[in-house]
Amino acid sequence: MGARIVRRTTAAEYLERDAAMKSTTEYLTFHLPSRLGWINITPQVEAVVERSGVAEGIVLCNAMHITASVFINDDESGLHQDFRVWLEKLAPYHPAVEAYQHHHTGEDNADAHLKRQVMGREVVVAITRGELDLGPWEQIFYGEFDGNRPKRVLIKVLGE
Amino acid sequence: MGARIVRRTTAAEYLERDAAMKSTTEYLTFHLPSRLGWINITPQVEAVVERSGVAEGIVLCNAMHITASVFINDDESGLHQDFRVWLEKLAPYHPAVEAYQHHHTGEDNADAHLKRQVMGREVVVAITRGELDLGPWEQIFYGEFDGNRPKRVLIKVLGE
Amino acid sequence: MGARIVRRTTAAEYLERDAAMKSTTEYLTFHLPSRLGWINITPQVEAVVERSGVAEGIVLCNAMHITASVFINDDESGLHQDFRVWLEKLAPYHPAVEAYQHHHTGEDNADAHLKRQVMGREVVVAITRGELDLGPWEQIFYGEFDGNRPKRVLIKVLGE
Repeated sequence: MGARIVRRTTAAEYLERDAAMKSTTEYLTFHLPSRLGWINITPQVEAVVERSGVAEGIVLCNAMHITASVFINDDESGLHQDFRVWLEKLAPYHPAVEAYQHHHTGEDNADAHLKRQVMGREVVVAITRGELDLGPWEQIFYGEFDGNRPKRVLIKVLGE
Repeated sequence: MGARIVRRTTAAEYLERDAAMKSTTEYLTFHLPSRLGWINITPQVEAVVERSGVAEGIVLCNAMHITASVFINDDESGLHQDFRVWLEKLAPYHPAVEAYQHHHTGEDNADAHLKRQVMGREVVVAITRGELDLGPWEQIFYGEFDGNRPKRVLIKVLGE
Repeated sequence: MGARIVRRTTAAEYLERDAAMKSTTEYLTFHLPSRLGWINITPQVEAVVERSGVAEGIVLCNAMHITASVFINDDESGLHQDFRVWLEKLAPYHPAVEAYQHHHTGEDNADAHLKRQVMGREVVVAITRGELDLGPWEQIFYGEFDGNRPKRVLIKVLGE
């Protein structure tokens, strides 16, 4: 177990450059032609970070809908099928009114609200030296649990 | 799939105004008269953001207790009942000593620690143009899994 | 239900001191001699925060591997055993090729990818007056679901 310091802004660096805080906000729209699915959005998030000009900071990526997720895992199609089977077991899709109390409102997607709690709403990713500071296999995904309509993801970059 | 830029602070803006970082920290206390329940805390978080004077940034909202959650989902009572039933199935309340190893300490709330992992500890929400940047149905909830006593939520605003 | 303001940086404070943003990034490496396990990493995170010199801000702690977690819960060995049993029930370890689609790639750790979604990838913790602003029982853990090899955790401090 060990620690290695990689980057710390120093007083000298602050004097040399503009160390004021910067922020950028962008919204991505996704429209999946199925109820459930995944999209690797790492390239889009990278592009926002690059446009932001932030060298050191964080980027928040969150679903703006409560039946969708942004999460980080492996870009492997077999695993994605495993996620699908597993989530269906943990929180089954049952469109019948009697299956979930939420369906008394006319909705049929209570399972999507539950699945999203397992997979999470958001990720916060470090930006180091102007780039997403991800591990070797970390990829950012949009997870859809009630698709067939356009939905938004918010990307907020904060840093200097 | 498309991206729309909504707000990016520019060098000119930085010169015009005070772009220094601001932070605000507030603590909310909740006391639910039941073991399990939800409170919509969006108005309280909005009030903290407004008091902070931050225009662009993020707000972190987290439970300070390990048997409670802060999460974002729908403010619909049927769904809330579905969450309750579902969490009870995933991590059942069994106060008996033999039900969970944690109960050998004298506690009876191991299920609450597990439920909180499903629902999450915290949310990070973007602040854009001085307001919580939430999707149309996103509401922030305090989730209690071992109530009948006062518990705290931390709200930290960071931005400019 | 009540709110108490604890700390808000004021215009006067900004004039008095250097309010520029600071950031620090460190990487910790963990090598667990077992497939599954937990390490309390609160002291290491505290040390990074102290070294950063940040008084008000946040710290992001995330696993850089997709079969590991950083999460916050109780430092109690009975509960840790309960987590183990519970996760095994929700997402069982089955190394056989036919158990998970992911195993057709030659991997045997699909369960670890699922377990990590339940426990989460990251935590964001407030820094107030130079210290981790944790509740009385909150402790930060590294959770390993596919060990026996070195893995990294990223710690990013952002604030002023």
